[in-house]
Amino acid sequence: NLAEGFFFCAGYSILFAVFAAAVIVIWQPSAGGSGLPEITGFLNGTQVQRIFSLKTLVAKFLSCVAAIGCGMPIGPEGPMIHLGAIIGAGFSQASSESLKFSLPFFERFRNPEDRRNFISAGVAAGVSAAFGAPVGGLLFCMEEVSSFWSNTLSWQIFFCCIISTSTSDIFNSAFEKFQNIGTFGAFQTSRYILFNIDEGVDINILMFLPSVLIGIIGGVLGSLFTIINLKIHRFRKRKLAAITRSWLVKVIRLAEPALVMLFMTSFSVFLPMAFSCVPFQCMKGNSGVLSDNCANDTTNKYDSHYNQENIFPTCEEGATHLNGTTLLTNGTYNELALLLFSSKDEAVRLLYLRNSHYMFHYAPLVVCLIIYFLMVCWASGTSVAAGILVPMLVIGALYGRLVGLAMVDLFGVHLGDSYWNWIDPGAFALIGSASFFGGVARLAPAITVIMMELTNDLKVLLPVMTAVMVAKWVGDFFTHAFFHALLELKCIPFLNQQPNVRIDKRNVKLELFSAGDIMAFPVVTFDLVEQVSTLAQTLLDTEHNGFPVLATTKEGKKVFHGLITRSELLVILNNPDVFQRERTEPVEEPDLDIVPIGYDTLLRGVKKDEGTIRKFLSEFVDAKSKVKDRYIDLSPYVNQSAMSVPSKFSLHRAYTLLSALGLRHLTVVDKGNEVVGIITRKDLMGFNMVDVLGTIMQNRPDFQ
Amino acid sequence: NLAEGFFFCAGYSILFAVFAAAVIVIWQPSAGGSGLPEITGFLNGTQVQRIFSLKTLVAKFLSCVAAIGCGMPIGPEGPMIHLGAIIGAGFSQASSESLKFSLPFFERFRNPEDRRNFISAGVAAGVSAAFGAPVGGLLFCMEEVSSFWSNTLSWQIFFCCIISTSTSDIFNSAFEKFQNIGTFGAFQTSRYILFNIDEGVDINILMFLPSVLIGIIGGVLGSLFTIINLKIHRFRKRKLAAITRSWLVKVIRLAEPALVMLFMTSFSVFLPMAFSCVPFQCMKGNSGVLSDNCANDTTNKYDSHYNQENIFPTCEEGATHLNGTTLLTNGTYNELALLLFSSKDEAVRLLYLRNSHYMFHYAPLVVCLIIYFLMVCWASGTSVAAGILVPMLVIGALYGRLVGLAMVDLFGVHLGDSYWNWIDPGAFALIGSASFFGGVARLAPAITVIMMELTNDLKVLLPVMTAVMVAKWVGDFFTHAFFHALLELKCIPFLNQQPNVRIDKRNVKLELFSAGDIMAFPVVTFDLVEQVSTLAQTLLDTEHNGFPVLATTKEGKKVFHGLITRSELLVILNNPDVFQRERTEPVEEPDLDIVPIGYDTLLRGVKKDEGTIRKFLSEFVDAKSKVKDRYIDLSPYVNQSAMSVPSKFSLHRAYTLLSALGLRHLTVVDKGNEVVGIITRKDLMGFNMVDVLGTIMQNRPDFQ
Repeated sequence: NLAEGFFFCAGYSILFAVFAAAVIVIWQPSAGGSGLPEITGFLNGTQVQRIFSLKTLVAKFLSCVAAIGCGMPIGPEGPMIHLGAIIGAGFSQASSESLKFSLPFFERFRNPEDRRNFISAGVAAGVSAAFGAPVGGLLFCMEEVSSFWSNTLSWQIFFCCIISTSTSDIFNSAFEKFQNIGTFGAFQTSRYILFNIDEGVDINILMFLPSVLIGIIGGVLGSLFTIINLKIHRFRKRKLAAITRSWLVKVIRLAEPALVMLFMTSFSVFLPMAFSCVPFQCMKGNSGVLSDNCANDTTNKYDSHYNQENIFPTCEEGATHLNGTTLLTNGTYNELALLLFSSKDEAVRLLYLRNSHYMFHYAPLVVCLIIYFLMVCWASGTSVAAGILVPMLVIGALYGRLVGLAMVDLFGVHLGDSYWNWIDPGAFALIGSASFFGGVARLAPAITVIMMELTNDLKVLLPVMTAVMVAKWVGDFFTHAFFHALLELKCIPFLNQQPNVRIDKRNVKLELFSAGDIMAFPVVTFDLVEQVSTLAQTLLDTEHNGFPVLATTKEGKKVFHGLITRSELLVILNNPDVFQRERTEPVEEPDLDIVPIGYDTLLRGVKKDEGTIRKFLSEFVDAKSKVKDRYIDLSPYVNQSAMSVPSKFSLHRAYTLLSALGLRHLTVVDKGNEVVGIITRKDLMGFNMVDVLGTIMQNRPDFQ
Repeated sequence: NLAEGFFFCAGYSILFAVFAAAVIVIWQPSAGGSGLPEITGFLNGTQVQRIFSLKTLVAKFLSCVAAIGCGMPIGPEGPMIHLGAIIGAGFSQASSESLKFSLPFFERFRNPEDRRNFISAGVAAGVSAAFGAPVGGLLFCMEEVSSFWSNTLSWQIFFCCIISTSTSDIFNSAFEKFQNIGTFGAFQTSRYILFNIDEGVDINILMFLPSVLIGIIGGVLGSLFTIINLKIHRFRKRKLAAITRSWLVKVIRLAEPALVMLFMTSFSVFLPMAFSCVPFQCMKGNSGVLSDNCANDTTNKYDSHYNQENIFPTCEEGATHLNGTTLLTNGTYNELALLLFSSKDEAVRLLYLRNSHYMFHYAPLVVCLIIYFLMVCWASGTSVAAGILVPMLVIGALYGRLVGLAMVDLFGVHLGDSYWNWIDPGAFALIGSASFFGGVARLAPAITVIMMELTNDLKVLLPVMTAVMVAKWVGDFFTHAFFHALLELKCIPFLNQQPNVRIDKRNVKLELFSAGDIMAFPVVTFDLVEQVSTLAQTLLDTEHNGFPVLATTKEGKKVFHGLITRSELLVILNNPDVFQRERTEPVEEPDLDIVPIGYDTLLRGVKKDEGTIRKFLSEFVDAKSKVKDRYIDLSPYVNQSAMSVPSKFSLHRAYTLLSALGLRHLTVVDKGNEVVGIITRKDLMGFNMVDVLGTIMQNRPDFQ
């Protein structure tokens, strides 16, 4: 009964979709999306709230499982990466703010650098486990997620990836759907390599031509994907912002995934009816032509598998009979149902199948491509924990197979050791996946290695590399990489390794400008010995995170001495022991023994919410405060290794300094070391540089 | 006739070996060795003479071809990487000093950064072509050779590697030993994947145990290899330095490779006689036991191949007869002869062969391992162009197969789909190769990817990663990485990404020291306007490459303004147009229009030999010189983006600055911006830091 089937499917899907969204919308909003932009931003040096909390971990897991389970067109890889990062961030600290414990070990890892490295390791472990791709995970982390990398880290993460992949392989080896299948420890290729390809084809120099074509399609579709995705994002944001009642916003955000699933279910159930069922065809043999005699052979892989379970029931079930030792069937299958109804992993595996030239025809592939492309664009932005990696593989495989099918129609079916047997739609589907991945994410070595580790098919390495390369070039012509566009959308100030400022469609040479051109001024500074009330008032009045501290020279000039951060000042103010009644000379050479606040304390207790901090600070400026006239000698706490540059310093080099060393503040001084300005990462964001440098270029005729 | 054979072999080998050495010793000494340390040093920021000249290219090619041709135990990969680097350095400039031309295009690449990037690309292309490993080439360049890397460079080199591998594959596809075999463009796996493995085995969790063992052996032998190699190097250097007659030195350096070849030939010819010939054995079948009935089957790969050509003639040639469609032979082969007489590539392929459990037995493997290990140690340091990559693979494969053989003896022969069929000596040989590579070079992702691309066997990825990882850990316990040890041996001041200073077997925390602790002082400085004779005299008296330039403030204090290099000063002195008769005030804001020497000119004409430069400078200080009392205003030429740090600046951060930004000089200033010292990369070399910081630690009780 069709209507009954539809309502069961739709109801089931919508229920899970609403649950997946509810976890995010009602309980933990920071667990939404893939989490990749937030992690990338954090590793670049931006503080993003609550992305590494235990609650986020639980919410992410529940939402992702529910969303994948109901068949939404999204992938679990992004969330798995985020889960890995949370585990890396949490376990390495052996302490938790939510659970209120702090174990006595791993104390040496409780610093920003080690925490960052553990998060990188978690990201890599996530990719390794999700794809069974240890080297790919390492490279993905290095190329896309991390902003700081060293050879030591590379080793450490390499080890982490071995462990991660081995662990997931061990579970894979022993269990099939939670059933122990008694082969503990035997890693079978067909089980632990996600899209294992047994019969790779030898490639040919001519294969590069369709690979370039696929690369171009990948670049164009990848950019289109990014653009549509952003437009939907912005549209949703605008509409939701216009609604004033917050419960209504929540209802809409819950309803959206349900709507996605209603559409998806309708497509999956009704669209295949427009396509007739086709008989199984087998392409095996060395004759060079289509071998009809094995058309119904169940030794054919895709027959025996999909005969019973996945073929839509409107197709006639085949009658099976034994012919010698071979089980034969005369069943049929519906191409579109096969693609839409099976899981995404299964769909990718089917599209990659070799020697299956006419398994899918144009119409089902095109219909599926359009549905998938649009639904993934939409679904990936809804309020569920969702990644797009596997959907990207499906979309790429669909148009790759289309190109392959066209090649087969043009040049015929070639099998066996022929010079032309590289024309295999399965191989082109793989190349297509890589190209779409490349067109969206714009990574090179990482994608190539991940594709190889996913498929175990090293033979198509060169065409895959070519397609990825072309897709990146074509894509860069139209728009940013998808994940970087998301960073901008989420207002995360990400500092690229290389500056990229374009004014009037031309790259601006930052060498021609100086640090003084972009710096912010006047700068809020402190003297080495300051009054408590001045400190508190300044912290209340400004939102700066770093303050240059000035020393006074013998000539009475105030020169740059070092930098102190807002959070350090908050901790110092929290320790009345260090307040002095009189203004003293600053300690010249702070002895390690007499520092009244240890480094441990300096970092702790800083995290408080905005309101509490304001209340705490207000007490110091209150007229009734007993300590407001006391003084603090900041000299033991000032970071004397804070960088400063002269105002004539090249802007390009200043940018490199901030990005390569991960600095947050760069003080600008004049010849006599007096502070004239400060550069923070916000000053170096693209839009700000275009503004400031554009004005300078208009006013200086020599730039024209 | 044995004697005749020996003399023919020995004579032929020695002739080529002497030729290979003569090219280096007599013609172009800079082409000796693998070239890797020199390139690594250059890309780290050290100038190495003549390594990128056209003569070096020709000499390297000739010497390498002759040395490989005569069967020396060395590999062609190091030289191929060097050739790639030379091509990258030369072609990108479209100009040559040897050939005296400078084409009008590619001018924008004539700067140090682009040249460096092209050299990196050349290195990657060399690896790609040598191994057919495009991704491996990229990673090798990134992990081992390059010191500066960006995502943009990663893309560019990715593209370069595609082209490099495709080109060599195209030639491979069409030609067999210079014969056109009519398959142009069809890339057959068996031809373009160097050590292609058809029948990989599914791995098992138990496989990690022997992999760890192999990793330990790899680490120990890798360190031993490095240590013996360095000892031979130092011994040779000491002995040759003691000889005063230069012709005798040359003769000895010519004789050394000849001696190597005499030994090698003697071993290859006479040692196999100590081993009896054994019949071919075939292991195919699913029965789980050794299948005797196919013992002489020529369908067995290593039979038909090696029967006629490579088996040492003292073994009886088999009589062949047809049995149905199968050609059978009852021939025998000599295991040691097979290993020693075939080319190194062929030996690796044989050792990697799957399902060939008893192809080699203990004695021949051990003998071959000892000979190879020692001879490679010796040969790689002689005066020929030689790499050690393929020899490393052979050595690793030998002990890997030994471990595999022991496993087979312990647990029996398992074939087919058994739970134990992972016990295959061929698979362990592959893991062994990776572990020795790891133990010597201490790279991780690069080696893993290269091994996968070399063998097309992704199934053993995890054991290979484990072995590489363990080998690196064990190796690091004993000694440096081989290529880094060579850098020290060749006195190339290489600045590691991370400082590693060990005093009393403990890592020194550079955070506890400041820039002032390690800086050199007093500093030779210039004023903005200087007398010609002062400049010339200073350049004659010192060997410094960079000089801080001081500006005078209104208060009359001399403060740090910027840096000027020796080569810039030489070019300025070469342009008498800029000399002034009077001492003027320095130009405050140098206008771009009035700079008398263009940037092009500033970089050109600098390269002259030491003697000419001294003569040129002496003319300025000569009493008769007309221009010695003239002045030069340096302000338009001073690099105002030179970094300076206060003397309290953390030493760790100063180190990071120099290494991450590739600086050569870091000026140290006091609070008032007056110059108090300078740090160059030589100050940050390990031995110097140990000296200076060790003294400080002894004098400061708080460090104890």
